Amino acid sequence: MTMATPRNNQAIVLHSGGQDSTTCLAWALKKFEKVHMISFDYGQRHKRELKAAKTIAKKLNLTHETIKLPFLSQLTSNALTDKTIKVKAGSKNELPSTFVEGRNMVFLATAAIYAKQKGIPNLVIGVCQTDYSGYPDCRDDFIKSIEKTLQLAMEFPFKVHTPLMFLTKAETVQMMQKLGSLELLKYTHTCYEGRELACGLCPACKLRLKGFRMAKVKDPIKYESKTLPRK
Amino acid sequence: MTMATPRNNQAIVLHSGGQDSTTCLAWALKKFEKVHMISFDYGQRHKRELKAAKTIAKKLNLTHETIKLPFLSQLTSNALTDKTIKVKAGSKNELPSTFVEGRNMVFLATAAIYAKQKGIPNLVIGVCQTDYSGYPDCRDDFIKSIEKTLQLAMEFPFKVHTPLMFLTKAETVQMMQKLGSLELLKYTHTCYEGRELACGLCPACKLRLKGFRMAKVKDPIKYESKTLPRK
Repeated sequence: MTMATPRNNQAIVLHSGGQDSTTCLAWALKKFEKVHMISFDYGQRHKRELKAAKTIAKKLNLTHETIKLPFLSQLTSNALTDKTIKVKAGSKNELPSTFVEGRNMVFLATAAIYAKQKGIPNLVIGVCQTDYSGYPDCRDDFIKSIEKTLQLAMEFPFKVHTPLMFLTKAETVQMMQKLGSLELLKYTHTCYEGRELACGLCPACKLRLKGFRMAKVKDPIKYESKTLPRK
Repeated sequence: MTMATPRNNQAIVLHSGGQDSTTCLAWALKKFEKVHMISFDYGQRHKRELKAAKTIAKKLNLTHETIKLPFLSQLTSNALTDKTIKVKAGSKNELPSTFVEGRNMVFLATAAIYAKQKGIPNLVIGVCQTDYSGYPDCRDDFIKSIEKTLQLAMEFPFKVHTPLMFLTKAETVQMMQKLGSLELLKYTHTCYEGRELACGLCPACKLRLKGFRMAKVKDPIKYESKTLPRK
């Protein structure tokens, strides 16, 4: 096994099929010459997202790898992978019930192994500290730490790009507008409920809708609920 | 989901069924009140090791979880998971053909998720910088970095213990002798070839035999080869 030379003009985007990772994808397509997508199937309730990721990859004609990580749902108990737990937002002392502990850490480690095989040092992930909902592995200090850990683990100059880290949801929508890729959001899926159409009422839908409202942009997806929340 | 209070008197030992992790296990049993074992099935050629881990857990009456990580062998090409690649030692510019890129990183991340669920902050792993055979994720700077990454990812005071980090193979044998647990090594499996008996000739067997020879201790396992290497 010889050491790979880093292909600095290529990037792997960690793609969930949702709005944030699709915004990262549009960002990466402007910044890098060649972009690849990687998605993770960890037994999530909102598998509909994976279908969205596949559709987007096809639209953009990008390489797309989906990796199965079934152990994540075996090891953690949460509402995203266990249908007996109700989806609810976090409170002051509790993490939201949708939290899969250590998820981004495992996603980044796995994406890095895949990237190294292709000789690609750039990883792009849509984490955001601003409205991070209590998930510690969305914060900038975590990203800086894992970037160094990845470099040391594989002796490769990995760079973890987080274009949304300090943006509000409204600014993320505006970024997509500036990138000229708003219509790509039509294919995204954010809702935690996992049905064909987004419910419009779960915490993920509420956060998405709030962002579009604040940015004064119309969300291009259809919702199940006729009366969408106004705040 | 409420935050777990750390159980500082308990530890999880990452156990491959081999000599090093069994030495770590003996070390942990002296240091902590309660010890659990975790093993990983990643499609390795030497699955015989997993059987050894199970035997040891049973002998010591310890909780033992085996986690399947099939994506590791899907993502990397190497002699441990691909039987078409010959096992060979590394040279100056090449990693050994048995290297699974990022393996210890994924093992530690997965073990940490499991440990957090049980409220256990202590992880014990048998990595060793002294004769690390070119694996970057066996080194102390990697361990220090991932320890911090794990803490940040899950907001939990993880501690990664590496009792063998600066020992030679001979000193590892001597540590086991001092711990009074030499007979436990009878159940371990180190050979990469994955047959019932160790071959005695592959790089892993050679390294093991050298350690025992230098420590002037007899290796309690049986070997296939009648003529074992003398240096």
